[in-house]
Amino acid sequence: MLTTMTLPHLQARTLTDILAPVQTDLRAVEARMRAVTMEQHASLTYAMNHLLAAGGKRVRPAMTLLAARLFDAPRERSIALASAIEMLHTASLVHDDLVDGSLLRRGLPTLNAQWTPAATVLAGDFLFARAAELAAEAESVPVMKAFARTLMTIVNGELTQLFLGHGVASRENYFRRIYGKTASLFAVAAESPALLAEAEADYIAAMRRYGEEAGMAFQIVDDILDFTSDESHLGKPAGSDLRQGLITLPVLCYLDQNPEDPNLARLLDGRTGDATLVERVVQAVRTSGAIEAARDEARAFVCRAQAALSGVPDNAHRQALHDLVEIFVERDV
Amino acid sequence: MLTTMTLPHLQARTLTDILAPVQTDLRAVEARMRAVTMEQHASLTYAMNHLLAAGGKRVRPAMTLLAARLFDAPRERSIALASAIEMLHTASLVHDDLVDGSLLRRGLPTLNAQWTPAATVLAGDFLFARAAELAAEAESVPVMKAFARTLMTIVNGELTQLFLGHGVASRENYFRRIYGKTASLFAVAAESPALLAEAEADYIAAMRRYGEEAGMAFQIVDDILDFTSDESHLGKPAGSDLRQGLITLPVLCYLDQNPEDPNLARLLDGRTGDATLVERVVQAVRTSGAIEAARDEARAFVCRAQAALSGVPDNAHRQALHDLVEIFVERDV
Repeated sequence: MLTTMTLPHLQARTLTDILAPVQTDLRAVEARMRAVTMEQHASLTYAMNHLLAAGGKRVRPAMTLLAARLFDAPRERSIALASAIEMLHTASLVHDDLVDGSLLRRGLPTLNAQWTPAATVLAGDFLFARAAELAAEAESVPVMKAFARTLMTIVNGELTQLFLGHGVASRENYFRRIYGKTASLFAVAAESPALLAEAEADYIAAMRRYGEEAGMAFQIVDDILDFTSDESHLGKPAGSDLRQGLITLPVLCYLDQNPEDPNLARLLDGRTGDATLVERVVQAVRTSGAIEAARDEARAFVCRAQAALSGVPDNAHRQALHDLVEIFVERDV
Repeated sequence: MLTTMTLPHLQARTLTDILAPVQTDLRAVEARMRAVTMEQHASLTYAMNHLLAAGGKRVRPAMTLLAARLFDAPRERSIALASAIEMLHTASLVHDDLVDGSLLRRGLPTLNAQWTPAATVLAGDFLFARAAELAAEAESVPVMKAFARTLMTIVNGELTQLFLGHGVASRENYFRRIYGKTASLFAVAAESPALLAEAEADYIAAMRRYGEEAGMAFQIVDDILDFTSDESHLGKPAGSDLRQGLITLPVLCYLDQNPEDPNLARLLDGRTGDATLVERVVQAVRTSGAIEAARDEARAFVCRAQAALSGVPDNAHRQALHDLVEIFVERDV
């Protein structure tokens, strides 16, 4: 096993251990995200509190803060940066849920389940603007450029998906989609503290690579959990990706192992509206070897993320980033 | 008359004269806005071309470019800045039309008349991201901060309007609404070149003031033209604000002059769904002294904009900015 082979000390390290050095900064991020910086309509304040209370794992700002320590980036500006990353993530979820028509996220009603589409569009726009304001507080032009570029990548990916439909069920399409959706933001989460610290170009590139690979692993595991976890953990019914017609890595692995499965063939033919059929395939994937195969692919991304770290100076914070991605892949929530 | 009293030379100055020194830069702005900077989905390219072909008067980038000359700001970065301003404007129109359900703008179908709401949301998001990227190319942290703040102001204003409905028919509500909708962006259009040139604080404040007052005048005249112009010029039916239940300055002036008008009273009571009634009020406002009264208020904003310019160094470009706002108010398209 990768874990025991390369990281024997990890067995005893929990996420709490890894994040201990940045816990205070993470609380500062939380406060910064909730800060109201202009006289704003009460509904906006309500929406922001609702979205931020839903929480989420805050893995992106944690990565940013650890990377900031690694490069000894200025503390206040790093906190602004980490807040900007998570705010951008939150903003994109608001429009995402609207585009998908999702009614639940993390067990709470989405904003568009409660508001009109018009209000939801504007609330998302406000959060994007607030993310831009927080990013500007990091006071770095290269960071601003990386931010804007990332938002373009995320949106371009969503729009491509919307126009293409779900396309051919292939790893190429799947990896391209999760790069746009998730890995691009992890890339900037890891890279931007190096930009902020004006680190040398090789270090910046290594951190970007680390973030990309880590983001891919993170999304694959999210897609696995969509099959293996239950509604109380997911905050939405299990198998919801497939119900939406979304083909993720566990399904692709299942297809590799069971190329002749008639139920899956019918599903891939576009029969995603047939609830009984979807339920059968969800059960089949969940109990098959596809789950472990998909997790192995996630481990390979983790391995490449860790390898990328060999290109930056070694210290305790580099070790924390190394261990953090290990936990991404072994988590069960 | 203000025009002849304060600016006798203006009689012969056309918009072409005023903009002559920045015509080349305006073409560069047009090219920069159309530039495709990442491999993007063909539909996005189509949408951007459609939106940019619809044109618009490009008054915001013109103001930015003239202000950049006044302060001798770096040329390439000023062009990026002016492009960012117009791109932000274009992006906000896309979401605006979606929120309002508008089907026509400048005589062309809006994006949401052709696309699903989901695709329109994402196309607007992409343009916001592109605006942020262009703003970052201006390479100034204060400019980025001003940009983000302006977007927050615009969106907060729209959201307030959405939740409050159209509120009480008062100048206070009207002026607050057009500040958020229009003047806030003109303010940053005029202020940001001074930020870029690292001008002294008094100059920056004077330019911001100039932009705010100019933006108020510009929007008032737009609201007048909604009554006095015809469909071939407006690209949409005349009186469309009132049809949407939107009370603008010409209506407020009409109310001052005709406080007992029973048709208007019924309209203000919420009967905006009655097309015959709306048509009667549109005709009444259009042919009343309210139009000239509203234009006089716009002239007062122009006068304050010009007064604000007295706080910055005098040169040919300051004169151009002075004359530009004169044309805002006397225009008939």
